[in-house]
Amino acid sequence: MNTRPTRPGDGPFTERTPRVVAARALTRRAGRDKAGRFLAEGAQAVREALRWAAEGRGRVHEVFVTDPSGDLAAAATEAGVRVSTVTDRAAAGLSETVTPQGIVAVCDLLDVPLANALAGSPALVAVLVGVADPGNAGTVIRVADAAGADAVLLAGHTVDPHNGKCVRASTGSIFHLPIARAASVPDVLAACRDAGLELVAADGYATEDVESATPAAPTAWVFGSEAHGLPAEVLESVDRALRVPLYGGAESLNLATAAAVCLYATAWRRRRDQREGISGR
Amino acid sequence: MNTRPTRPGDGPFTERTPRVVAARALTRRAGRDKAGRFLAEGAQAVREALRWAAEGRGRVHEVFVTDPSGDLAAAATEAGVRVSTVTDRAAAGLSETVTPQGIVAVCDLLDVPLANALAGSPALVAVLVGVADPGNAGTVIRVADAAGADAVLLAGHTVDPHNGKCVRASTGSIFHLPIARAASVPDVLAACRDAGLELVAADGYATEDVESATPAAPTAWVFGSEAHGLPAEVLESVDRALRVPLYGGAESLNLATAAAVCLYATAWRRRRDQREGISGR
Repeated sequence: MNTRPTRPGDGPFTERTPRVVAARALTRRAGRDKAGRFLAEGAQAVREALRWAAEGRGRVHEVFVTDPSGDLAAAATEAGVRVSTVTDRAAAGLSETVTPQGIVAVCDLLDVPLANALAGSPALVAVLVGVADPGNAGTVIRVADAAGADAVLLAGHTVDPHNGKCVRASTGSIFHLPIARAASVPDVLAACRDAGLELVAADGYATEDVESATPAAPTAWVFGSEAHGLPAEVLESVDRALRVPLYGGAESLNLATAAAVCLYATAWRRRRDQREGISGR
Repeated sequence: MNTRPTRPGDGPFTERTPRVVAARALTRRAGRDKAGRFLAEGAQAVREALRWAAEGRGRVHEVFVTDPSGDLAAAATEAGVRVSTVTDRAAAGLSETVTPQGIVAVCDLLDVPLANALAGSPALVAVLVGVADPGNAGTVIRVADAAGADAVLLAGHTVDPHNGKCVRASTGSIFHLPIARAASVPDVLAACRDAGLELVAADGYATEDVESATPAAPTAWVFGSEAHGLPAEVLESVDRALRVPLYGGAESLNLATAAAVCLYATAWRRRRDQREGISGR
């Protein structure tokens, strides 16, 4: 028999408390899609979520904490967000990581329509096609944010950015820049072209490389999965393909490091051109 | 009772076969240090190990496979390396990964003395100080190899590069370029300086950034751990510190992506200078 209290005010919520059970469903994609909500776990993610909500970009519905005396619990309460104390076991049930962080926020899904993500003359966009690994996707979102990208677009069978591992790997960056999802890869590429972006694929088999032919125009860098690269039909429909040059014996780079090299190369080329008065957005 | 055969020629080796037991000890650092050997797991690592041995840089003592009919088993036999078939369970015991690869080579430890790693006027070197995560260390070794670095130096309490996760994350790169280890960080920095390298620390708090002040001289890039960065005494003893500029809202990059940006920036700057006739090694 479970004799622990489950009503608010009676003590910490357990893994059987209905609101915890409802939140736990958000650890699965079907649950997130149904509820239109996801879990942002850990102090950094919760802090970014509260800032994102304060900017009117989405809503934080509630926060669960194991320690209600923390600054972040106070900040959430201050912002009008319901804060509830949960047991360690309940927190573990809401966690998708090996080490539960003891704080998790229930947030609106944060992806926006493709047209919104590409509004306002973007100069640098990252497109992920068929990236299944949530850690990789989250790390690329972090890199895109760091390099000053205007948006990240997730196309085809790419992982849900609200997956706990993706949220964690992004270290808050999923809240920083617009993220859009679309199942149709051609739709995503067409939208980029309509937004005035040159479509440049990162492809290990390309003949030209990103050093000698760094994209300078408003650029959508298109990245495929680490295991399979980009499908042929994507490579045929982009404006050009470039490889990251490999100067040593390595056969390849992993997705996040390749994306870092490509996105920073373009960011720096654009900055250099702007300093030298060469036109660009 | 274990009734499976354990003598060579009698059938696959089991987890109790003495040579498998001895190899299993190499999954722990103490066992590796004692035996002076490590395990290279997976087809890519074994292929690179055989090439490394063929170049006379070290020895592959034996190979364990679950499927003796593969090309790589044949290549090992051809190279005079003893190949033994093992059960799936024995292979799992030799694996440090979630999914055993079914092939593993017992190799000499591959690190070389500091002076050897820095012989021959190196132009680009990566130094890791206190990097404890084997996956991070392996990924940086891969990136350093890709960017054409001449060596990777592991200083202070940095993870053993022969750790299975590090070997795996390097995707063969640990066999491509000289790797040296030294407990004394000052010794490593002094050796770099003696080799004519400028010591440049990657530091998120530096005032100058790698875009506007890209190192061009022969450079030793010094990287700290993702969690703690570089210790103050290291920052005080390098020639200068640079940060990777963050143009968006991200607070930082992870170690491997930061290393990719720094190492490629210097590799490209040197190539550009050489093309333009500016002197450099």
